[in-house]
Amino acid sequence: MKQQNMIKNGSYKADGFIGAYQKLVKEVVIPYQYSVLNDELPDVEKSHVIDNFRNAAAAIRGEDVKDGFYGMVFQDSDAGKWIEAAAYSLQNCPDKELEKTVDEFIDIIADAQDEDGYLNTYFTIKDREKRWTNLLEAHELYCAGHLIEGACAYYEATGKRKFLDVMLKNVKHIYKHFVTDNNEGFPGHPEIELALLKLYRITGDKDCLELCKKFIDTRGVNTDFYKQEKEKRDWTVWGNNAEDNYYQQSNAPVRNLDKATGHAVRAVYLYTAMADLSGETDDEELFAACERLWQDITERKMYITGAIGSTVHGEAFSTDYDLPSDTAYAETCASIGLTFFAARMLEKEVDGRYSDVMERAFYNTVLAGMQLDGKRFFYVNPLEVVPGISGVIATHWHARPQRPGWYGCACCPPNVARLITSFGKYAYGENESTAFCHLFAGGRVEFSNGMKFTCETRYPYGFAITYKIEKGGRLAVRIPSWSESYLVLLNKKPVRTEKIKGYVYIDVADGDTLIITLDDSIRTNYASTRVHDLTGKVALSRGPLVYCFEGADNDNDVLSIALKKRCRAMVTENGNLPCESIAIGVEAVRKTDSDSLYSFEPPTEEEITAVAVPYYIWGNRGENQMRVWMDEA
Amino acid sequence: MKQQNMIKNGSYKADGFIGAYQKLVKEVVIPYQYSVLNDELPDVEKSHVIDNFRNAAAAIRGEDVKDGFYGMVFQDSDAGKWIEAAAYSLQNCPDKELEKTVDEFIDIIADAQDEDGYLNTYFTIKDREKRWTNLLEAHELYCAGHLIEGACAYYEATGKRKFLDVMLKNVKHIYKHFVTDNNEGFPGHPEIELALLKLYRITGDKDCLELCKKFIDTRGVNTDFYKQEKEKRDWTVWGNNAEDNYYQQSNAPVRNLDKATGHAVRAVYLYTAMADLSGETDDEELFAACERLWQDITERKMYITGAIGSTVHGEAFSTDYDLPSDTAYAETCASIGLTFFAARMLEKEVDGRYSDVMERAFYNTVLAGMQLDGKRFFYVNPLEVVPGISGVIATHWHARPQRPGWYGCACCPPNVARLITSFGKYAYGENESTAFCHLFAGGRVEFSNGMKFTCETRYPYGFAITYKIEKGGRLAVRIPSWSESYLVLLNKKPVRTEKIKGYVYIDVADGDTLIITLDDSIRTNYASTRVHDLTGKVALSRGPLVYCFEGADNDNDVLSIALKKRCRAMVTENGNLPCESIAIGVEAVRKTDSDSLYSFEPPTEEEITAVAVPYYIWGNRGENQMRVWMDEA
Repeated sequence: MKQQNMIKNGSYKADGFIGAYQKLVKEVVIPYQYSVLNDELPDVEKSHVIDNFRNAAAAIRGEDVKDGFYGMVFQDSDAGKWIEAAAYSLQNCPDKELEKTVDEFIDIIADAQDEDGYLNTYFTIKDREKRWTNLLEAHELYCAGHLIEGACAYYEATGKRKFLDVMLKNVKHIYKHFVTDNNEGFPGHPEIELALLKLYRITGDKDCLELCKKFIDTRGVNTDFYKQEKEKRDWTVWGNNAEDNYYQQSNAPVRNLDKATGHAVRAVYLYTAMADLSGETDDEELFAACERLWQDITERKMYITGAIGSTVHGEAFSTDYDLPSDTAYAETCASIGLTFFAARMLEKEVDGRYSDVMERAFYNTVLAGMQLDGKRFFYVNPLEVVPGISGVIATHWHARPQRPGWYGCACCPPNVARLITSFGKYAYGENESTAFCHLFAGGRVEFSNGMKFTCETRYPYGFAITYKIEKGGRLAVRIPSWSESYLVLLNKKPVRTEKIKGYVYIDVADGDTLIITLDDSIRTNYASTRVHDLTGKVALSRGPLVYCFEGADNDNDVLSIALKKRCRAMVTENGNLPCESIAIGVEAVRKTDSDSLYSFEPPTEEEITAVAVPYYIWGNRGENQMRVWMDEA
Repeated sequence: MKQQNMIKNGSYKADGFIGAYQKLVKEVVIPYQYSVLNDELPDVEKSHVIDNFRNAAAAIRGEDVKDGFYGMVFQDSDAGKWIEAAAYSLQNCPDKELEKTVDEFIDIIADAQDEDGYLNTYFTIKDREKRWTNLLEAHELYCAGHLIEGACAYYEATGKRKFLDVMLKNVKHIYKHFVTDNNEGFPGHPEIELALLKLYRITGDKDCLELCKKFIDTRGVNTDFYKQEKEKRDWTVWGNNAEDNYYQQSNAPVRNLDKATGHAVRAVYLYTAMADLSGETDDEELFAACERLWQDITERKMYITGAIGSTVHGEAFSTDYDLPSDTAYAETCASIGLTFFAARMLEKEVDGRYSDVMERAFYNTVLAGMQLDGKRFFYVNPLEVVPGISGVIATHWHARPQRPGWYGCACCPPNVARLITSFGKYAYGENESTAFCHLFAGGRVEFSNGMKFTCETRYPYGFAITYKIEKGGRLAVRIPSWSESYLVLLNKKPVRTEKIKGYVYIDVADGDTLIITLDDSIRTNYASTRVHDLTGKVALSRGPLVYCFEGADNDNDVLSIALKKRCRAMVTENGNLPCESIAIGVEAVRKTDSDSLYSFEPPTEEEITAVAVPYYIWGNRGENQMRVWMDEA
């Protein structure tokens, strides 16, 4: 049973919480990011993405533009991600102006493609002789992957083939190098693998599948590959360690992997492709590896916010249970990648544990990655912030207390944009007989199997989800694992339903009204005592939202607050919130100690009501303390 | 009022706890370290210290030994520190064999001195043209300082002048360069300043004082000095950042300093000299700076174990209240330097807050620095260890779970040895009318003011200290700040005494018996809530000893233990201890959680007695969990 994403004829027109975010992305993020790519903003670090393509085209025409490349070696990928986000936005909400902008951008990209199909501005501008000589560092395949994803999304949104054809031609070039000419190699940064599967499903071109399979199958087989590659060349981008196979997930054939290691984004992009390919090719051995990796990540290496990759050293997975709050790396892109991985696992097997993680990552880390106004972004998502330490001292420099603007390395912002605009692909799925509601997202949904409904909900702040059925069939709705109790009402009558792997299955008819009510209680979360940074601590959540405590709501001092054991907590109106949201008031004590660094006197404790806000809105009210995991009094 | 250390005619023959440590150093540490310096141990990293001196002598004779230097640029300092430790040991307990070994070593060192008084094997062997061109990195003055300290100690122990004269000649050479020829500069690593003051007090040679004063007075005045020095030379030792004046305490004239910054050992060696010089020259402005720095360290930057320098980045002081347990750097040498600083502050002003810190640093971090068998050493002294994380992952690689053997950079082992062997200099002091008992150390003490007594105590495990007076006078005994109550009995009769800045002053006559009894209760310690790593946590101590919990005594799992609030604790016999010591049993709970990483269910709690042992003995029973700061249940 395959739960395909709605890539063919389905549609999702969002409203409510998701609708508002999609509107923000359309009205603010996409135009803002385009201005950045075009170097139009004076106070923002130069991006040069579009000029790089123009200069590559000039190089192809034989002009001297050797100094015409600016930015990271993977700068082209921003073009792919931006177009992908714009395409999803167009799919959600047509916009002639935006479409025209994208078309012009695509023309510029197309001009930068070499006669033989090669397309990469870094090498085309700087030195075409060096193509394919540095898979370890040079991100050629990574950039191609993002451009392919952009091309697929734009084709789906508009039916226009130009970009798709450009990228198909590029894939044929890559296919020739790696398959026909049988050059050894696999991507330093996985990404093209998952893109090739998208392209394969759209075009039916078997070369895409074969090329993907080759990259997956050869990865980690020759563990000296990067070392040998390095020995053959006389140049480097960053001087990456070619022997750290764990960093680049090439320590073993991927079917043998059982531990998530190395750069977290690379890892989950790879696992996403592995899961997708295993479904596409019914490769149970490959799926078993994905299952082991999934368990390793979600049972030993994931923050409560759905963040992964806890260490700044290599932006990487750390060892089991090493989940520090204040020095967390927890990159936004890694949680986006985890969402991709979850979605592909879900396609292979409908199981709420995948959608639970997808939801945890999205509503906490991914949303926290973007400022509420859509203009600034976190790459790093710490679970504790102390001004003066966070973002300042060497061990914490990466864990900034406020969202910075656009970086030179701008991976996260367009990634957030494309995930939000494509939310429907993760929220809803279908097979021939069933419509799946993996996540709760208000709006009108049409499936290619003919089913249609409108979903009404104030989720994630309201816990009744109403499906007004236009065209019936079988509906599978996830009951999140955090919802201990739930109620299913069909046309106002309770329905007894068995939960199968986290989903209830209900047959609905045209005109039916199905209401699912989930548990709205505030929950106290405990971490395993194996997490040495979290012993003695608790965190609050409500629904999918993990809560945090900020100085802004708590007299500028969160460190001295301890929550009462088995504390009573209630939702509360709080005028101080920077957006429509719901705060939590909780019984707590404020500790006041003497002025000494150490004392034999316990601090005095005053009863207070501490205020928690959803983690994703932290850092929107200036620099202040923030804590997810609180002491218990 | 000056409380001089007993450097002239006093003596201290230790017994009890300190005596046993001095015996260990004499019988194990000093011979072991000499074998290392002489490259006699096959399984230990090559030291080459003695061979470096031999090769320098050969270089002076004109032989080609360009490749004859091995080790760190500051390798010579190990010679100074080892001779210093050996000298104190000889002073405590004469030993013809050891004295002969030292004499021979001194002959080798003397042969390595250049005609003009210069003495440094690195430059003499490698390139004499480069002398004095890299004060930032090359440690010439640092090495000279340690050799001077060794020479002073050996002269005091034996009355032999050879080494003293060698070092005086060396100082004259340095004086000529920096004073007579007026070359700009001050030590990259402070150390010679405090050594020059020792040499001055022994020899009365005013040049020593003047040279010290010049180094102190010019430091940080030209904040571009190291940068300018770097621009003039075409070589480097490590590529140190010449512009990081905070790292090398040259960010401002030292009289203006108010924050302890940078490399912690460098800092406290400098502050030690500043405090000493301020006393020597009645420089109140300089003392005021010392006082500010003292407060900054002890009120905002010191671990409960008396460790300082919390970050591995630069082995340095971090910002206020940044005192992580698991990633602590907390170098043994830094706590030794803090002891020096405390002792010099104490000489200027008798105040228990200095001796309290001296005691805290010694009984916890300094003793923890050495394995109980005297053969292995910690440089880094974390307050929490989790096998699999500590010493393994990038953020924790420095915080090893077990003491390593001799390092290439062997600063800490001989430093521990010299502090233990000279313990009497810190424990006791005197002026014309009074004998000071700053620390409690069993044994027989003679002061140069004529007073004599025997001190009997099982301290730090017994809290009665008996002074049997042979020759009376005024006795000043510190009452530690941790001892809330205390009892003074003179010839079995209670004496009411006023405590003045942490000391009681009692006139004792020949034949008197004075017994001071201190509070033996187990205390719960709380850290300021400003220490974000320690909120909600408590630590136990008894007397000067901070306690920790190790897996070895607690079913190999310390992380799941929480101490009961206001827990009852009692001293306990524990057959599992690796040395004569006293463990603490404390009411606690053992938490058992589900196998989940996160759970809504609080862990079940089982009442247990958790066992704590003195921090200084941790890591002597194999790799296991260790925690000083425990959760409160």
